[in-house]
Amino acid sequence: MSLTALARSLPSTVPFVGPEALERRTGRPFKARLGANESVFGPSPAVVDAMAAAARDSWAYGDPEHFEVKAAIAAHHGVGPENVAVGEGIDGLLGLLVRLTVEPGDKVVTSLGAYPTFNYHVVGHGGVLDFVPYRADDHEDPEALAERAAALHPKLLYFANPDNPTGTWHEGAAVQRLIEATPEETILVLDEAYADFAPGSALPPLVPFRPNVLRFRTFSKAHGMAGARIGYVLGAPETLVHFDKVRNHFGLSRMAQAGAIAALADKAYLRETVARVAQARETLAAIALDAGLRPLPSATNFVAMDCGGDGAHARAILDGVISRGVFIRMPGQPPLDRMIRVTVGRPEELALFAEALSASLRDR
Amino acid sequence: MSLTALARSLPSTVPFVGPEALERRTGRPFKARLGANESVFGPSPAVVDAMAAAARDSWAYGDPEHFEVKAAIAAHHGVGPENVAVGEGIDGLLGLLVRLTVEPGDKVVTSLGAYPTFNYHVVGHGGVLDFVPYRADDHEDPEALAERAAALHPKLLYFANPDNPTGTWHEGAAVQRLIEATPEETILVLDEAYADFAPGSALPPLVPFRPNVLRFRTFSKAHGMAGARIGYVLGAPETLVHFDKVRNHFGLSRMAQAGAIAALADKAYLRETVARVAQARETLAAIALDAGLRPLPSATNFVAMDCGGDGAHARAILDGVISRGVFIRMPGQPPLDRMIRVTVGRPEELALFAEALSASLRDR
Repeated sequence: MSLTALARSLPSTVPFVGPEALERRTGRPFKARLGANESVFGPSPAVVDAMAAAARDSWAYGDPEHFEVKAAIAAHHGVGPENVAVGEGIDGLLGLLVRLTVEPGDKVVTSLGAYPTFNYHVVGHGGVLDFVPYRADDHEDPEALAERAAALHPKLLYFANPDNPTGTWHEGAAVQRLIEATPEETILVLDEAYADFAPGSALPPLVPFRPNVLRFRTFSKAHGMAGARIGYVLGAPETLVHFDKVRNHFGLSRMAQAGAIAALADKAYLRETVARVAQARETLAAIALDAGLRPLPSATNFVAMDCGGDGAHARAILDGVISRGVFIRMPGQPPLDRMIRVTVGRPEELALFAEALSASLRDR
Repeated sequence: MSLTALARSLPSTVPFVGPEALERRTGRPFKARLGANESVFGPSPAVVDAMAAAARDSWAYGDPEHFEVKAAIAAHHGVGPENVAVGEGIDGLLGLLVRLTVEPGDKVVTSLGAYPTFNYHVVGHGGVLDFVPYRADDHEDPEALAERAAALHPKLLYFANPDNPTGTWHEGAAVQRLIEATPEETILVLDEAYADFAPGSALPPLVPFRPNVLRFRTFSKAHGMAGARIGYVLGAPETLVHFDKVRNHFGLSRMAQAGAIAALADKAYLRETVARVAQARETLAAIALDAGLRPLPSATNFVAMDCGGDGAHARAILDGVISRGVFIRMPGQPPLDRMIRVTVGRPEELALFAEALSASLRDR
């Protein structure tokens, strides 16, 4: 195969191994699936109904202009449809953004240990990643990121708030300072996948939109639609218009579009999910403390737990939990790899985790 | 926005305007949707059930390795799972292939008037398209394509069999000659989206797989799942492995994966759909002849009709049909733009088309 020079240089890879692959390897299904920050509480029943109805209509392509779902998202945020672009999850949209902006050798700034799929896209387009360490308190370091961006004038500056994999967050005022410090020619990639779980004070105002700030949101987390594949980006129209140059126009399924519209309409269900997640987070923190681990504060649907050792120590604890049928994950990058990361679950799933964790720790 | 040089050069575009956009423009829904080569007969009831069940499970990401759906596709074709890569429709897979192989300035050969979305991807990666005219009998010209490929040694050589937008097809022996004539460093992109409708003799054997031949198939046409977004490519493992370098790993929805497995299991429904399509094609051909248009032979789910004039003539006929509430399309490229292209429908939809067509012709 006559690959491009860039494609020749890339590894064949899966940034995250799915729980299904682990299940096939062990031959045993997981008893609890708490590793991928999915919402075990599921989508709203209205979403399930809307997607089932759309299944019957799925002989027809979905609207390539995403007219209705863009209108619903715009209304939800009180902005115009021209401030919305929709795609196959944040992952898909990040890939398009990187393709639009990054040429081989271009610099991109992110935090050391932040979202691997963003890095995958940057490397996949020949970009050169520059990493800023997390602060000692396991928060991203917006001041250091701003400084680094001012020095490098990178094409993209990635910042997740709330953060994955730590779950920590910054107040909106700090994010606003980062927005204002971002060089004009740099796009600030504000990954707000977990925004629905965060206190309102963590989110800087949406408007006025700046041409160099893009805010990524998803239906995969609080809306419980990870398997449906739909995310969106909020921004200035003159920036979003470029996505039309490179997108897979018919890539968004009818079911995802119909489900997203139903999800936004069921505000009570979203509130309920957010409350259940907050409560489950408390339970997870208590489980961590009971087990002698230090839970990090979280404004997401997961809790990172500092195991108090090195990567090998956390990996051994994680392996012990996984081998007991509870799927969890951990950051791969030191020093964050002192932690395990556990998605919230229903009480019975959290009990399974607690049991697996204490058994795993007993083995040590 | 600091776009790449390539991105700056690209237009913001939608290769195909969706019927929804036309409906919004006129304020009237179409009475019949016969323009996008969708299957009005819909997916199998088993597919609808499988997708509805998957909707309930859609809180979880789909398997990023596509293990079960790859196994089902492999079994269907009597090949190994390593001969299958799955993606967000043929469009999505074509985009990945172009990204893997085409650098700015690289040559790509296709037929003049063939699939615009393939061209969109090539241009989107800076490739230079070289066009071979259709034969005078409105078939692609495999001999001329082979000659051109031998002269240019392009990165990619695109050939659709059966063809879109003409519906015509070549026998497997002719395709096999094209396969053998394709230069080793050129990848033959064999777009077989309509293979399920074609006589068996039109398809050269799948095995042995050659490293430079990729055969694209879809669930969007005969399986009636256009809105679910799933297609696949059959090929040699050493070629397919490269898709893992650039794909959106979690891009395939749970519903699409579950639906595809159910579709392959319901072979009776597929046979029934293919028979209904063949019958509807006959009806469409008769409608064309009655109206004084010349229907082209078709091994697809649509019939191209030569209106016997130039592009403006066909466009006027098409506009008359569309304004009467029947969505159809036409090729944009001379000399194919003498034609209108009509997807098969149920008897009542075909009757609506016949009525709209004769009214449109009366207006001329």
